[in-house]
Amino acid sequence: MSWVEALFRPARVAVYGSTAEGKIGHVLIDQLLAGGFREIVAVNPKSHGIAGVPAVRSLAELPTDRSPIDLVVIASPAATVADVLDDAGQAGAKAAIVITAGFSEAGDAAAERQILEVARKWDLRVVGPNCAGIVNTRHALFPTLETRPPAGDVAFVSQSGALGGAVLSWAEEQGVGFSKFASYGNGADLTEIDFLGALRDDEESKVVCLYLETVSDGRAFLHAAADLAAKKPLIVIKSGRSESGSRATLSHTGSMAGTDAVYDAALRQCGAIRAAGIEEMFDLCRAFVSLPPMTGRRIAIVTNSGGPGVLAADRTESVGLDVARPSAALRERLRKRLPAFSAFENPFDLTVQGDGAAYRDVLTEVLAEYDGALAINVNVPYLDSAPLAAGVVEAARMTDKPIAASFMAGAPAAAARPVLQDGGVPNFATGERAVRVLSLLAERECVRERLARSPKGIGSDVATGSKPLPWDRDPLEPEAMAWLDRLGLPVIEHRWVRDAEAAAAALRSFDRPIAMKVVSPSILHKSDRGGVLLRLSSERETASAFRRLRVIANGIGFDGVLVAPMIDDAIELIVGLSTDPQFGPVIAVGLGGIFTETMRDLALRVAPVSKPEAHAMIDELRGRAILDGVRGRPPCDVDALANVVSRVSHLPFEFADIRELDLNPVFCHERGCAIADVRLLRKDAAGNEQEEAHR
Amino acid sequence: MSWVEALFRPARVAVYGSTAEGKIGHVLIDQLLAGGFREIVAVNPKSHGIAGVPAVRSLAELPTDRSPIDLVVIASPAATVADVLDDAGQAGAKAAIVITAGFSEAGDAAAERQILEVARKWDLRVVGPNCAGIVNTRHALFPTLETRPPAGDVAFVSQSGALGGAVLSWAEEQGVGFSKFASYGNGADLTEIDFLGALRDDEESKVVCLYLETVSDGRAFLHAAADLAAKKPLIVIKSGRSESGSRATLSHTGSMAGTDAVYDAALRQCGAIRAAGIEEMFDLCRAFVSLPPMTGRRIAIVTNSGGPGVLAADRTESVGLDVARPSAALRERLRKRLPAFSAFENPFDLTVQGDGAAYRDVLTEVLAEYDGALAINVNVPYLDSAPLAAGVVEAARMTDKPIAASFMAGAPAAAARPVLQDGGVPNFATGERAVRVLSLLAERECVRERLARSPKGIGSDVATGSKPLPWDRDPLEPEAMAWLDRLGLPVIEHRWVRDAEAAAAALRSFDRPIAMKVVSPSILHKSDRGGVLLRLSSERETASAFRRLRVIANGIGFDGVLVAPMIDDAIELIVGLSTDPQFGPVIAVGLGGIFTETMRDLALRVAPVSKPEAHAMIDELRGRAILDGVRGRPPCDVDALANVVSRVSHLPFEFADIRELDLNPVFCHERGCAIADVRLLRKDAAGNEQEEAHR
Repeated sequence: MSWVEALFRPARVAVYGSTAEGKIGHVLIDQLLAGGFREIVAVNPKSHGIAGVPAVRSLAELPTDRSPIDLVVIASPAATVADVLDDAGQAGAKAAIVITAGFSEAGDAAAERQILEVARKWDLRVVGPNCAGIVNTRHALFPTLETRPPAGDVAFVSQSGALGGAVLSWAEEQGVGFSKFASYGNGADLTEIDFLGALRDDEESKVVCLYLETVSDGRAFLHAAADLAAKKPLIVIKSGRSESGSRATLSHTGSMAGTDAVYDAALRQCGAIRAAGIEEMFDLCRAFVSLPPMTGRRIAIVTNSGGPGVLAADRTESVGLDVARPSAALRERLRKRLPAFSAFENPFDLTVQGDGAAYRDVLTEVLAEYDGALAINVNVPYLDSAPLAAGVVEAARMTDKPIAASFMAGAPAAAARPVLQDGGVPNFATGERAVRVLSLLAERECVRERLARSPKGIGSDVATGSKPLPWDRDPLEPEAMAWLDRLGLPVIEHRWVRDAEAAAAALRSFDRPIAMKVVSPSILHKSDRGGVLLRLSSERETASAFRRLRVIANGIGFDGVLVAPMIDDAIELIVGLSTDPQFGPVIAVGLGGIFTETMRDLALRVAPVSKPEAHAMIDELRGRAILDGVRGRPPCDVDALANVVSRVSHLPFEFADIRELDLNPVFCHERGCAIADVRLLRKDAAGNEQEEAHR
Repeated sequence: MSWVEALFRPARVAVYGSTAEGKIGHVLIDQLLAGGFREIVAVNPKSHGIAGVPAVRSLAELPTDRSPIDLVVIASPAATVADVLDDAGQAGAKAAIVITAGFSEAGDAAAERQILEVARKWDLRVVGPNCAGIVNTRHALFPTLETRPPAGDVAFVSQSGALGGAVLSWAEEQGVGFSKFASYGNGADLTEIDFLGALRDDEESKVVCLYLETVSDGRAFLHAAADLAAKKPLIVIKSGRSESGSRATLSHTGSMAGTDAVYDAALRQCGAIRAAGIEEMFDLCRAFVSLPPMTGRRIAIVTNSGGPGVLAADRTESVGLDVARPSAALRERLRKRLPAFSAFENPFDLTVQGDGAAYRDVLTEVLAEYDGALAINVNVPYLDSAPLAAGVVEAARMTDKPIAASFMAGAPAAAARPVLQDGGVPNFATGERAVRVLSLLAERECVRERLARSPKGIGSDVATGSKPLPWDRDPLEPEAMAWLDRLGLPVIEHRWVRDAEAAAAALRSFDRPIAMKVVSPSILHKSDRGGVLLRLSSERETASAFRRLRVIANGIGFDGVLVAPMIDDAIELIVGLSTDPQFGPVIAVGLGGIFTETMRDLALRVAPVSKPEAHAMIDELRGRAILDGVRGRPPCDVDALANVVSRVSHLPFEFADIRELDLNPVFCHERGCAIADVRLLRKDAAGNEQEEAHR
């Protein structure tokens, strides 16, 4: 029997812990019974059963002629949990839920390791400790302290027990039913990754929701999540957006590591839909369990009132839906079907005279031309809203495109709600919320197609690189440039000079103004130290520049000067590689120059990325249009840039020990691009960090 | 008797229109009676009364010994409305509500003008036509087709009748009560401006909400809104965000006119709080009617569960609140009061063991140090949530700082909700929503202080300028530059040359590379036409450049070339003045260069702006940090820039006929700034527009 079967479909369940009034063991047995599950045994030192549930001191006492104990639920004191698990394992249990707290979350990691050892001994899988239990509504199984939710098609996995409980409590009111629920607490054994794997193949769960504070293993999570998302919608609430990390500036891409932006990129890459909070999660669940796919982004809004229609239309732009105008043919067809007072533009205003047939007919007509529709109704208290809802439901039955509803509000819309719910048309408190959900329905189709094209998910089969870097310390900039050049990456033409005469020679050979940069192992941010001098065009200037640069590195290691021609007519970008503590190598590309820091216009991915994916990153930039050539500039060679991004993103999978690689700027020309500044940090080299810290 | 008194506190009301079953007149009388208002007369050709309400064919038939008819409500056919109004005016009515539709909104503006003429004749003020009526809960007055809302302290004015109705229907469920409601429909006579004036002094309305699609008079609206907002919170929902205008690029600031961005700026200037939609409006109402002011932005989150606490904290950053860490002293005080298992960081986690006293004590302690607090509770179904809510209410009574609550969710929190409501603690569905509302509470205090400092509101006393512009056509760029220079604005050093020799002489006199721009009345976007040539540094180059520029303007008017020195070390900004159809002159400042178009980083105000306000605009820019000097650059002279912005914003109030003035770029130096490119369009000059249209 698999742990999934034992946990969610046990034949019999044992509950460890005191069954005295008010004790957790008591609450658990009450919940199990109230939920309709009868095959329960209580296990406690006093052998004290309640409500007809038999009790033993140990499972060893149990007669063996009955069905086996597949699952045990443990609410006994923390100090007893290891022994109790041993008892359960001996009796053949294959899954355990440890409600009891007081382990790693309270600083006692040793006790948690001990639990794990016992579990491994008996090949018994553990949920928790410090968790809120699980639910399987299809098995009438509620070993949890939380509200028993209505049955439905949504599975929900929560790292936080309390937040999980809030969701279950709210479900009835929100009109969302659950198939399964699991709170995995400290995740000593089973984690979100195991549950994603189990729920992928769970026929009873059409949609999977996950509340996450941290992932246990970034790459394994991405793999499991992408695997699930290829089959069904995965909705994730990830908290911790505002952690200190996200406040870091982007002066170098290394500071992206560990921030919410990396989680955000990772979640998008694995095809998860990130919900802003619990309310949006419920909105999404209602839509995904009942609506057909939305295969495009053109949306028709059919309303009986201007104001709410406009408010909904207002929202479409920010979520990337298109309230496109109808074709002349469609307008003509609508004109024939509807009275003259109706509006034939999008939003389509049926006016207060729109009845059920009008909703049905207009929705049916517009869906011949649009990818989805929103039916808004503002009812007046003296009219019955049910027939209007029935018209919407009829239209939904006649189409294979999604129709969402927003029947507003309070008492006048009460009669409509059950009609919509029974008819499988999700209803939203406002049209704006419906629009947001429809946009994510459309997004889901893009995700599904993307995952179908590359089924293996992100980075599931990439190992860390094995080649050594050619230095046993962080390289000097000219060394790193030469190395990138050997790897075939486009590096700007440059000279590494040791005296002013060589600098002057470089100026002559380039035959245009030059830039000079100090080379020193102790100086990371050259600009901030005055270590970059630009637009030097005479021998007098280069000589003076050389002197200044030597002074800057005086006493901290002066390794000459890097000379390169001035580039004034290219767009500057930044390409950066960093190492995230959760997800490993992360690649970023953004607009460069002084705007990087202030505009934060970066696209991020967990590395590696293919060239098409690199193109997708570039297309995400808010300032993307700059690359197409504005104000008479020629367009940039975006393909060459995408090459650099993709190639750089693969480097950590080829070479060991790259912690951070910053290319800033990369000049993007009409043809080709050129890396003009390189900073490479090794994983094991901490020396430079000190300089950093003292700045 | 004022129209406000007649409309909201009439002694007697007449209802014009058929009282047959299902007719609007019938519904109106039903509503008035059900609301508790008895002094009603029905007026209709059949003299048909219902439910004991007397009826006449005309008010002239009415005996004069009873109290006067102050208010008439009209639901008779559109063609009869003017006559009916005449009847009402003759009988001494001072206010009329015209529910009847079919006027300007249906294309019949003449009929609407006729109504207005009759109303003026009798000095009778009109609400509507095509409106949903009004409400005064304190007078038990409900002449409306919409749901009768619960009584409370919020006034609501709606341009859309249906949206107004949806709000009234939802009020009970949202826990918001209304003092007054008015739907002004087409606004033939009374508009939002009149209602803002009336509600400013209405003691029964603590908070005023407004749903707006367009304003009837931009400057008058700003004046009335600022006047009201100085006294009480004004919450505005403005729809139409996504109108085509907001899609326009910002290649010149003229395209800002008429867009949602102008409304957004105007609403902020007059101190209105813009709500994203109806749900947020309700959230804000609940907070503003019961909470004391929040005088800073430091917020403490007290929770009994980690997850929801973190989700709420996540939201603080984007809304500008600070979940600051507690002082050591506060941590020490909390340590004494609370058990060891509690967290003493912000969010403050009481854990599931937090009881009512813990909520009370911790909230009281933290509010000694923070500006406001959020109390989150996730209840488990087997514990009573009411005592926990009582603890929060006790804390709220002991402080003069705001406490919001988020008691979650569904049935387990049901017992807490009435305790919170009776205790004046607003409760929100999620902590995230509470955080958003608290941020606007803090914002409201800033607004109140700002309006108290400059009580006259924006532009209330500025007349349009009277001086003529020195040209009877759009000026050439060098002409506009000379004019700005005479006005004392900092214009870049430049030469207007007519031949290549003069260009070469200019190069020599500047002694550095130069920029050359074509001068032609037919070329507005010089860069797009190749009419700007940069970094010319030899006589050969300037000669060739002159030839190229002459070719560009060949046959469409070549007026020479503008020569200026190249500026490479300054930050480029854009300063623009445009004329909005609603609000008149609008001033914008933003980061310039190729980033203007793609980043859309502009700050906008309705003009004119003082110098401190110009500084505030500059501080709003996302890229503000660039002006402080990044990567070794010196900081810009922001004060000089603010001078230009403020000075330019006053020009339309000095000179007539400025339609659009674009300064792009304005170079901002370490000391001073310089306008390097000018485009001025006159209001009456349409010639250049054609060139524009043909591009």
